[in-house]
Amino acid sequence: MPDSKSSTTERALPPSFASVFALLKTHMARLDVYLREQLAAFEPEIRDLADYCIDTSGKRIRPSLVFLGGWTGDADAERGPSAELVRVAAVVELVHLATLVHDDIMDGALVRRNRSTAAREYGPEASVLLGDALFSHALKLSTQFPTTEVCAAVADSMKKVCAGEIVQTLRRGSANISHADYRRIIDLKTAELFRLSCFLGARLAGGAPEFVAAAAEFGRRLGVAYQIYDDLADFFGDEHRIGKTLGTDLASGKITLPLLVLLDRLSAGGANGAGGRSELLAEILHEREPQPALRLRQMAELGVFPAVADAVEDELRAAEQELAPHADQSAAALLGRLCEVLRGQVGGLRPAEAS
Amino acid sequence: MPDSKSSTTERALPPSFASVFALLKTHMARLDVYLREQLAAFEPEIRDLADYCIDTSGKRIRPSLVFLGGWTGDADAERGPSAELVRVAAVVELVHLATLVHDDIMDGALVRRNRSTAAREYGPEASVLLGDALFSHALKLSTQFPTTEVCAAVADSMKKVCAGEIVQTLRRGSANISHADYRRIIDLKTAELFRLSCFLGARLAGGAPEFVAAAAEFGRRLGVAYQIYDDLADFFGDEHRIGKTLGTDLASGKITLPLLVLLDRLSAGGANGAGGRSELLAEILHEREPQPALRLRQMAELGVFPAVADAVEDELRAAEQELAPHADQSAAALLGRLCEVLRGQVGGLRPAEAS
Repeated sequence: MPDSKSSTTERALPPSFASVFALLKTHMARLDVYLREQLAAFEPEIRDLADYCIDTSGKRIRPSLVFLGGWTGDADAERGPSAELVRVAAVVELVHLATLVHDDIMDGALVRRNRSTAAREYGPEASVLLGDALFSHALKLSTQFPTTEVCAAVADSMKKVCAGEIVQTLRRGSANISHADYRRIIDLKTAELFRLSCFLGARLAGGAPEFVAAAAEFGRRLGVAYQIYDDLADFFGDEHRIGKTLGTDLASGKITLPLLVLLDRLSAGGANGAGGRSELLAEILHEREPQPALRLRQMAELGVFPAVADAVEDELRAAEQELAPHADQSAAALLGRLCEVLRGQVGGLRPAEAS
Repeated sequence: MPDSKSSTTERALPPSFASVFALLKTHMARLDVYLREQLAAFEPEIRDLADYCIDTSGKRIRPSLVFLGGWTGDADAERGPSAELVRVAAVVELVHLATLVHDDIMDGALVRRNRSTAAREYGPEASVLLGDALFSHALKLSTQFPTTEVCAAVADSMKKVCAGEIVQTLRRGSANISHADYRRIIDLKTAELFRLSCFLGARLAGGAPEFVAAAAEFGRRLGVAYQIYDDLADFFGDEHRIGKTLGTDLASGKITLPLLVLLDRLSAGGANGAGGRSELLAEILHEREPQPALRLRQMAELGVFPAVADAVEDELRAAEQELAPHADQSAAALLGRLCEVLRGQVGGLRPAEAS
């Protein structure tokens, strides 16, 4: 799953997020109606399965990026979105839902957003195909524009998202993963859809080419920041989850930035005696309770939290820089507020509890 | 997998097929070059996986339908296909390969066309995503046409193929499956891509609307005939496979026409005493060796082979009827020869060996 590791890591939005999304009330309601209407386009036998996936409990971050990227002014809040923006918001959400369905199969996840996953509810076999059907429908909707531009952009992003997930899967449990590998994986698996959402929103709203390009790059940077934040929260989020999540992460062999930074620090400090970085990672990947608690304590002691939080901040600043030349645009102002929101979320994590 | 149940059921083409496909030598060579070129468009990490799937040992029936549907005359054999036909032939083949990759995961198949399946070679997780990447690339190629027509048609067909596979998966092992259910499943999972292939071939070659519609419907009928033939061959094909395949079929709970006809005959003859049709099917689905041999003997005794062969023939005649008003077209003549080819393949099966 592109933006979090299990349903338990899907955190409630802080009030600041809500303030941005309050503007999108009409937009989201239209999207919801539109997504429900799409169910009629599925074969009767799989309508229930598709319905199950198109639930309303998700954060709908990607559609929000479409709507904010296509924002033209205050009047938009009341007027609501154009039919084209709604359609493209549905496209990115359906692609995202399809990747979630496939991810849950791979992770063997049973619960997402407090409900059984499709894989558990209908079996992994039907879920593979359900994901395919959601993908296909997203692409079909993306052909309902005057040109092939939207469809081409969506197909291209889908391919990148898949590539990112494949690389992550192939590297799982491998002790040879670098910072560059991690960046590449999150760039493909998470940032690409954020980028696409901002790009299509700005593009369909008729933005100037320079702004469209800046919005797209903003989206990419925001996506990288969001994923790093999410990976950080897996170690330093709600205290009830900490040990468990760390164990889950290591057991699944997913290597994220907090662990990479820990490795750097342990290697630099010689904490593992003569062992090299790869040997140390291999050791960590094979250890079981109560070692995760030890690793978490080490993370706190060796300053992993601030280092990873800094990495989020670097991306957020780069994202803001992209929009700086377009400060006069309503869309730029609103998108920029998302950086503040994410900053607040990082601040809300509790590094102290790990010590 | 849409057109056969395991690699062992992929039969060699008879000489008659070869005579039609000999015309397509240049076309197939161009397709092969084009498919190889596509590998560069995949992220480096998944290029090998994609390469593994784009092998040349398949029959490439769907690309053939594209080329034959777009046939304009004898000169085509030497001149070769237009760039658009090659692209769309690659699209239908990639969609087909993607469904094979996903099907092999679901069936737990280890071997296809005498090689390990992608699922076995790279693991089911990476294979889910590899299938997605192949789908995405197919759709991306389908956006490289002047209008959205091709992409829309491909996305729509993909959704239908997935729906067919989902229905088949959900119904697996269910004793409540009717002839109508079976027809609907093969119409979606197999006939739809045959239809799309003929449609796009005829359309891109600039065929008249009536011919394009007829070619599409021909493709659909041929696809139904092909799948029924393939299901028949699973019971009455090469003798070394018979018992094993019957067992495999029943074990996987896939219910195909030969079994449905057997049920009809057993029910009508009261061979199962007082038990109803559903009870009988449930019984068959739960029995193990040596019962499959018994069922096969019953099939031979109760005339299942000719009944199913007749069903193939009905579809082939309907397919030929579609093309009858267009007998002056080169494409119609060539497509029509495929019916003769399939007829010959049905004739080549050996019902006697089952008794």
